[in-house]
Amino acid sequence: MSKQAIHDRIDSLRDVLTKQDLTAIIVPTADPHLSEYLPEYWQSRRWLTGFTGSVGTLVVTADFAGLWTDSRYWVHAAHELSGTGITLEKLAPGQPNHIDWLSEQLAEGDSVAVDGDVLSIAEQDRLLDAFEAKDITLITDRDVLADIWSDRPALPTAKLYQHDEQFVAQSASSKLDAVRAGMSEAGATHHLLSSLDDIAWLTNLRGSDVDYNPVFLAHMLIDEQTATLFVDNNKVSSDIKQSLQESGIELADYEAVQSALGKLTPEDLLLLDPSKVAVGTLSQIVDNVGFIEQMAPSTKLKSVKSDADVDHVREAMRQDGAALCEFFSAFEQRLAAGERLSELDVDSMLIEVRSQQPHYVSPSFPTIAGFNENGALPHYRATPEKFNYLDVSEGEGGLLLIDSGAQYQNGTTDITRVVGIGQVTDEHKRDFTTVLKAHIALARAHFPDGIASPLIDAICRAPLWRAQMDYGHGTGHGVGYFLNVHEGPQVIAYSASTPKERAMKVNMISSNEPGLYREGKWGIRIENLVVNRAVANPNETEFGKFLHFETVTYCPIDTRLIDKTLLDSIELNWLNDYHSQVYAELKDRVDGAALDWLTERTQAI
Amino acid sequence: MSKQAIHDRIDSLRDVLTKQDLTAIIVPTADPHLSEYLPEYWQSRRWLTGFTGSVGTLVVTADFAGLWTDSRYWVHAAHELSGTGITLEKLAPGQPNHIDWLSEQLAEGDSVAVDGDVLSIAEQDRLLDAFEAKDITLITDRDVLADIWSDRPALPTAKLYQHDEQFVAQSASSKLDAVRAGMSEAGATHHLLSSLDDIAWLTNLRGSDVDYNPVFLAHMLIDEQTATLFVDNNKVSSDIKQSLQESGIELADYEAVQSALGKLTPEDLLLLDPSKVAVGTLSQIVDNVGFIEQMAPSTKLKSVKSDADVDHVREAMRQDGAALCEFFSAFEQRLAAGERLSELDVDSMLIEVRSQQPHYVSPSFPTIAGFNENGALPHYRATPEKFNYLDVSEGEGGLLLIDSGAQYQNGTTDITRVVGIGQVTDEHKRDFTTVLKAHIALARAHFPDGIASPLIDAICRAPLWRAQMDYGHGTGHGVGYFLNVHEGPQVIAYSASTPKERAMKVNMISSNEPGLYREGKWGIRIENLVVNRAVANPNETEFGKFLHFETVTYCPIDTRLIDKTLLDSIELNWLNDYHSQVYAELKDRVDGAALDWLTERTQAI
Repeated sequence: MSKQAIHDRIDSLRDVLTKQDLTAIIVPTADPHLSEYLPEYWQSRRWLTGFTGSVGTLVVTADFAGLWTDSRYWVHAAHELSGTGITLEKLAPGQPNHIDWLSEQLAEGDSVAVDGDVLSIAEQDRLLDAFEAKDITLITDRDVLADIWSDRPALPTAKLYQHDEQFVAQSASSKLDAVRAGMSEAGATHHLLSSLDDIAWLTNLRGSDVDYNPVFLAHMLIDEQTATLFVDNNKVSSDIKQSLQESGIELADYEAVQSALGKLTPEDLLLLDPSKVAVGTLSQIVDNVGFIEQMAPSTKLKSVKSDADVDHVREAMRQDGAALCEFFSAFEQRLAAGERLSELDVDSMLIEVRSQQPHYVSPSFPTIAGFNENGALPHYRATPEKFNYLDVSEGEGGLLLIDSGAQYQNGTTDITRVVGIGQVTDEHKRDFTTVLKAHIALARAHFPDGIASPLIDAICRAPLWRAQMDYGHGTGHGVGYFLNVHEGPQVIAYSASTPKERAMKVNMISSNEPGLYREGKWGIRIENLVVNRAVANPNETEFGKFLHFETVTYCPIDTRLIDKTLLDSIELNWLNDYHSQVYAELKDRVDGAALDWLTERTQAI
Repeated sequence: MSKQAIHDRIDSLRDVLTKQDLTAIIVPTADPHLSEYLPEYWQSRRWLTGFTGSVGTLVVTADFAGLWTDSRYWVHAAHELSGTGITLEKLAPGQPNHIDWLSEQLAEGDSVAVDGDVLSIAEQDRLLDAFEAKDITLITDRDVLADIWSDRPALPTAKLYQHDEQFVAQSASSKLDAVRAGMSEAGATHHLLSSLDDIAWLTNLRGSDVDYNPVFLAHMLIDEQTATLFVDNNKVSSDIKQSLQESGIELADYEAVQSALGKLTPEDLLLLDPSKVAVGTLSQIVDNVGFIEQMAPSTKLKSVKSDADVDHVREAMRQDGAALCEFFSAFEQRLAAGERLSELDVDSMLIEVRSQQPHYVSPSFPTIAGFNENGALPHYRATPEKFNYLDVSEGEGGLLLIDSGAQYQNGTTDITRVVGIGQVTDEHKRDFTTVLKAHIALARAHFPDGIASPLIDAICRAPLWRAQMDYGHGTGHGVGYFLNVHEGPQVIAYSASTPKERAMKVNMISSNEPGLYREGKWGIRIENLVVNRAVANPNETEFGKFLHFETVTYCPIDTRLIDKTLLDSIELNWLNDYHSQVYAELKDRVDGAALDWLTERTQAI
């Protein structure tokens, strides 16, 4: 996109501000479902700025245009914003965000617009709180972009499909019963769901409206008797219509959700998650309808997988592990043969091997293949415009970080491995081994059933902290079952709040992914998925119930990068046990060069 | 106290309820300063129930009388309440407390009284929230006990004294400046302090109005120009009066605080900590005075000791360590000589040796000397009415847990050691060694500067959790400098909330005290005090600043209770290094049998 086009768009936006008597506009990166991945239709922030990162908030006034984004995108955003007249505003803990900036810069009585269709209730509350002191008006009911975004893309039209029934352990109607039990416990008469993974889980349907997450655009409104799915009816086959009907779910147009909510009365109590519902969705709601603002029951329910789900996930992990053996053996052979490979080749090779596995659907997120300094950017993505070749000079070397995953109908995968290219140094090994110690510390941890997940993060980080090292991202996120690779409520991150909703429960699936990033040099992250399991034969029973992690990712960790002197015997045993398990799980699924690679890389050290 | 006397008092209380048309009365264990230790004058809950524990809430209605207290007092309370007609209500996580009980049992429109003089603003908020749904009236302006508690004790009259100036690093006027800076940052015009340790810290004065904490009953009201200390003027010598005047602090009567607050106007903004100010103290405040409810600036300021303070504390710790060598050598000699000793002897012997040290003032809390099953009660206190002898049968053995501390003008100490009596078993050793592993894990931990203290608790507990063990109390509390042995804001306890106020900073002093309690068998706790120090020569500097703990308690940990096979080389090195440091710090301060004991018990294993 040309820098001039961006200039023109911001100028047009300023004209609208003037005409509509607005001081400022906020353009978040969001949609009416507060999703991680947005359909093109809601990529207004990208359209206005040219910045392609997945997170960022634009603020435009008559004489200022700035984009707030966090550290993982600073380099990227600086590059894409240069020459556009839009300044990069670095979002960091303790630094002012766009709300602070507006509160500071705007004058008494000013007006700020933001599209209510893409503004969560929780975010609106934060804006209202901040603007109260200066009596700044927040306007959320205008589509300020309507007049200037003439070539706005259409909404997606992909068909819905059933989650393959061999992988579904609980019917939609049974899930609906469980959600209604949660509503009843909260005292709600109605419940609005706008979050797409909750809706996909509840209906056992999937879609292809956005990249990576197998979801479809919809809302749901549930009361004690009825449940209505608001979705583009053209996407729904007659089979699915019938199946929904049998589950007690009615169909309505996607756009009809506002008017349906408009029929609620002041006697009704509507349960919703304020961080997962947009202000615009409630635009027709009458005054005095009661709200119960809390996490949706389905968010908790879907985080706890059934035993059958976990069995399917183990099988998906074996498939994924076998594909990775194919990838790594081919990749290393091609490099050894002197072929010049790039970060982009890693991505295409991974998709190639995974897509040959049964039940494969798509990647579960954009592959991160970052060599050396690119690996130090935790959310790096190589693009055809900008990528590195895996070139090292004679006698030198580097680290390639590969974070990738797939959606299979029987499970969602997410794995990070680091491989050495050329001659690795003692410093590479010390960093890698220290991150491995952190990974093992969490993998081996036991913890009380029900503890809030952020509270166990320190167990993972302790070995890094001892070496005055740390990393700026969470240690673990929840993972869906053929659903979003990032899902709540649990998050193993000491920076997160610790409400009861984050309680660790049996059969939750999370990532275990400590890392280390040396700016301009290299990045390291070692990531496996882990399942919360009850300690099977506890030595003690009088001090409560304890959980431990079952590691379900099966893929060798590169032992050539390990400084064995930094591992104690417990850590060494864990590693060797892990590798013998990986070998046992995968040996009958690969052959030829891939089996040779697996055999070699799972040798005990 | 006779059970009949308790019956009579509860009956009299019910008469008052009837006369005053009240449904229920709540009698908390509290005073107008929300202190841990109460003067007799405010021991109304104890007077009414006969229960001598330090925590508990009484609720009385026409046909119910119940006392809510937590697990550490259940055995004790059951004994003291039996036959009184008052039921023991066990307070436990997830179980209903007295507020839940009242909300459930009371009817629409009922009235509940609680003495506002001993009810914090925060607790009042919780009651009002809970009672709103049923329109239950909360009455806080009546002294319901006035007519029945005829022999109520008088307020204490002990004189104030200066904290010895050789141990004071910052003048009262300088501290006052710092508090005013905090007020200004919060936007407050006025600041009310009712917490006694804050007032003692700020004025550099000490008192003897309660046991164990060297504080005096007072309030302070501070504005931009003036500061007023509300205290019984008879307790204040002319020297102290003059010194206060020189520091810019005026004197007023203790009871005058309400009327002084009554002079605030709606233009004023009063900063106070809602958990540390009683409703009754604000009884004369006019409507529309603004409140800023947050932690008092002095609470944060006093938690961060000066380098000079920490030096004095190290010296106090050497004194305390020397006294403990005297104690342990004499104690073991007397036992070896066949003398029959009890838990009470431990207490008196400890006070005897400590009181011979320079700058000694008093114990810093009631000694816990619990043998075997008594050690399993984390807050056990032997009394002349109920205590154990340290008797074991031939060939048998047990564990004695001793948790004790002292107030010295140059520091406050708090230490727990466990000693074996007779023949200890492998199970004793396994438990003791597992607790030691937890203690060492925290003692060795590094952690990011500014992390909320509850987030590092898991590092300590991880070795216990691995063995499906845990303990029901926090791992660490803040410790004052010749002040309260329990002070905030930091608390190393994963059950605590994690607001920014709990940030770990250089020169905070905390306890490190993991434990294990086998009901009916024995209790183990290993407690040292630790000071937050910056990592002096960090290997890495690009990942932020890190803190570590300097252990400043110098006293051998009984190596005869250790199963060495359970320790790894790092843990073993820590222990041997600690013991060689203890020897070096104490060897010139003890002689004779105490030196022999020190020498033997600090041998490397």
